[in-house]
Amino acid sequence: MPSTYIAGAGMVRFGKYDDTVSFERLAVQAGNAALADANARRPHIEAVFVGHVFGGPVAGQRVATELGLGGLPVSNHENYCASGATALREAWLAIAAGLYDVVLVLGVEKMTDRIKGGVAPDPSDLDAMHGFVMTAGHAMSAQRYMADHGASREQIAMVAVKNHAHSQHNPYAQYQRAVSLEEVLNARPVADPLGVLDCSPISDGAAAAVVCSPRGLQRLGIVGRRPEVRGIGLVSGTLRTGLYALNEEDISRRAGEQAYALAAIDPADIDFVEMHDCFTIAEIVRLEGLGLIPVGEGGRWTQEGATSLGGRLPVNPSGGLLSRGHPVGATGMAQVCELYWQLMGQAGGRQIEGARLAMSYCKGGTVSGTDGASVTTVVVSI
Amino acid sequence: MPSTYIAGAGMVRFGKYDDTVSFERLAVQAGNAALADANARRPHIEAVFVGHVFGGPVAGQRVATELGLGGLPVSNHENYCASGATALREAWLAIAAGLYDVVLVLGVEKMTDRIKGGVAPDPSDLDAMHGFVMTAGHAMSAQRYMADHGASREQIAMVAVKNHAHSQHNPYAQYQRAVSLEEVLNARPVADPLGVLDCSPISDGAAAAVVCSPRGLQRLGIVGRRPEVRGIGLVSGTLRTGLYALNEEDISRRAGEQAYALAAIDPADIDFVEMHDCFTIAEIVRLEGLGLIPVGEGGRWTQEGATSLGGRLPVNPSGGLLSRGHPVGATGMAQVCELYWQLMGQAGGRQIEGARLAMSYCKGGTVSGTDGASVTTVVVSI
Repeated sequence: MPSTYIAGAGMVRFGKYDDTVSFERLAVQAGNAALADANARRPHIEAVFVGHVFGGPVAGQRVATELGLGGLPVSNHENYCASGATALREAWLAIAAGLYDVVLVLGVEKMTDRIKGGVAPDPSDLDAMHGFVMTAGHAMSAQRYMADHGASREQIAMVAVKNHAHSQHNPYAQYQRAVSLEEVLNARPVADPLGVLDCSPISDGAAAAVVCSPRGLQRLGIVGRRPEVRGIGLVSGTLRTGLYALNEEDISRRAGEQAYALAAIDPADIDFVEMHDCFTIAEIVRLEGLGLIPVGEGGRWTQEGATSLGGRLPVNPSGGLLSRGHPVGATGMAQVCELYWQLMGQAGGRQIEGARLAMSYCKGGTVSGTDGASVTTVVVSI
Repeated sequence: MPSTYIAGAGMVRFGKYDDTVSFERLAVQAGNAALADANARRPHIEAVFVGHVFGGPVAGQRVATELGLGGLPVSNHENYCASGATALREAWLAIAAGLYDVVLVLGVEKMTDRIKGGVAPDPSDLDAMHGFVMTAGHAMSAQRYMADHGASREQIAMVAVKNHAHSQHNPYAQYQRAVSLEEVLNARPVADPLGVLDCSPISDGAAAAVVCSPRGLQRLGIVGRRPEVRGIGLVSGTLRTGLYALNEEDISRRAGEQAYALAAIDPADIDFVEMHDCFTIAEIVRLEGLGLIPVGEGGRWTQEGATSLGGRLPVNPSGGLLSRGHPVGATGMAQVCELYWQLMGQAGGRQIEGARLAMSYCKGGTVSGTDGASVTTVVVSI
């Protein structure tokens, strides 16, 4: 497929914003930051792709109007927590099809407004309606992982310790302070063995990127190198195929294979990963599902620092969902911002030196997973 | 852009379905009909694009699973009443980009479940929140049209007479009986001058198409000609630029120009139109906005039968939204089904003989239109 580049990126600091900061205002701030970073003026932008879950009908059009981009082609894309990355996918396809040269992609969510009590399960998700909600599912995943692989509770907790340590260097993260292993282990219990520090928070936020064809880069007057979107995998399916296959992560495996094939890369060459760590254990089992870490070794890798900054495969240099926060429709684009900043060498205190090939991974869907799950994997190189 | 074809189409009869017929079941029935029509077995399908407004998060993934297409890339697309056509647009781009050869596109909505009292205005739509709701807007449009162009109430009512006459030949239409001019004029008043027969109903329904590259057609073993998607316009913007420009239809003009340019056609060559007649007057002013009828002449054209079957430019041979019904996310794909059946010569008693070039037009968005409007125009030829 024709080449597509990220010309610039921008986001707001994730967090909990009060009623004076609207969904639209978050998106406008992120969009303006991306436009400025890409050296793009409004007439450069040919279309706007917006990912969100709870913004309501034609939320993207309201955002485009407030951004001063009213009139353009605008489309809204929803794939639950993978909505932002799905919007990027549609932009990537539109550029590859030759329809546009310069577009703006936004992921945005104001969760504190819309779902004060957390994400409600869909009525069709019978498991969740009977109490097998998201946290319960991940707690069972953790129990299963420990039983199957002899992993320790401490190894799982170390995901939170690591990601919060990384977040100290990310000015856009909702939380920017380190937490100790003891704090994670002694945090308020949520679903055994997971405590509150094993869970990503409810967040508001927006993240954006300007995405271009080679001609689009020229039009923006960009002369230096920019990260190329090498491939985006999208699959759907079952999150968990049964109680004894809780961590099979077939959906992650398939999404990874699709992205690696499109990008024509060996996953062993990936320099770092932005991972959908909605819960500590999720980071571990998804890295294994994607084939980035041998099955059963994720706990040990984490404990030994292999997934920390400076380790063999840094995971979530941004702080991940656990620390950066998780405004669901924005997360995919926040991951892409981090890929961009790292590959451009602009990641400050969390910079991974010499990173050339990176991947982000997003998962969205209902918990029981007989239906409704969707996954995106984005591979970017410079 | 590379060629994209419609290999098959299918829909359910639109109407009001009770709780025993779910959103998913409507979509599955339409999807299966399209698959059968395209001679497609499940392994042929590489991705699923779903347009809907009120289905809830990852509704498309639930549909794909129930269709036996679980696991595939699935994405949900929302642009209010233009959601179905927006899903088609994304499929068209994915095929043009070379990513897929055979995909399924679905538009679906179960309105009677989700919005029993009608479509609520977005809280950001201050005009609508203060009573300037959709029907009021179209009533003002009708008053303005009559004042500006000397059109009569009867001319506007004739849109309903015409479209209901057409619907008698459409087995998928919610209403399939003719109405007289007297019935329209004497119907229960809604917003002066519009009565209930000037308004499209609340509906449930689903419509689908299998969309292919040339290689995809081969793969399905299709040897005859199939309609080609020549261009899809998408714009956003302001529905009405002010009280004295209520019928300016700048948004329609821009969407049409975009589609005509992509399709490389002269709109004068269009053989028939599927039009977003959510209200009688809307059909008239949008035809004018699209440059298909001279401004101010739409009422007369309608009265004289120029937009009827057998007329100079048949509009809404299907019966349109007024008669076929308007399950918002499904409408765009129902229009595409009609384009397909007409161009394939399969439209039965409503067949337009010799039709070769056709267009559908969808508009979605909030009523006051300082933001939130989006429009798609699809041009198809055989």
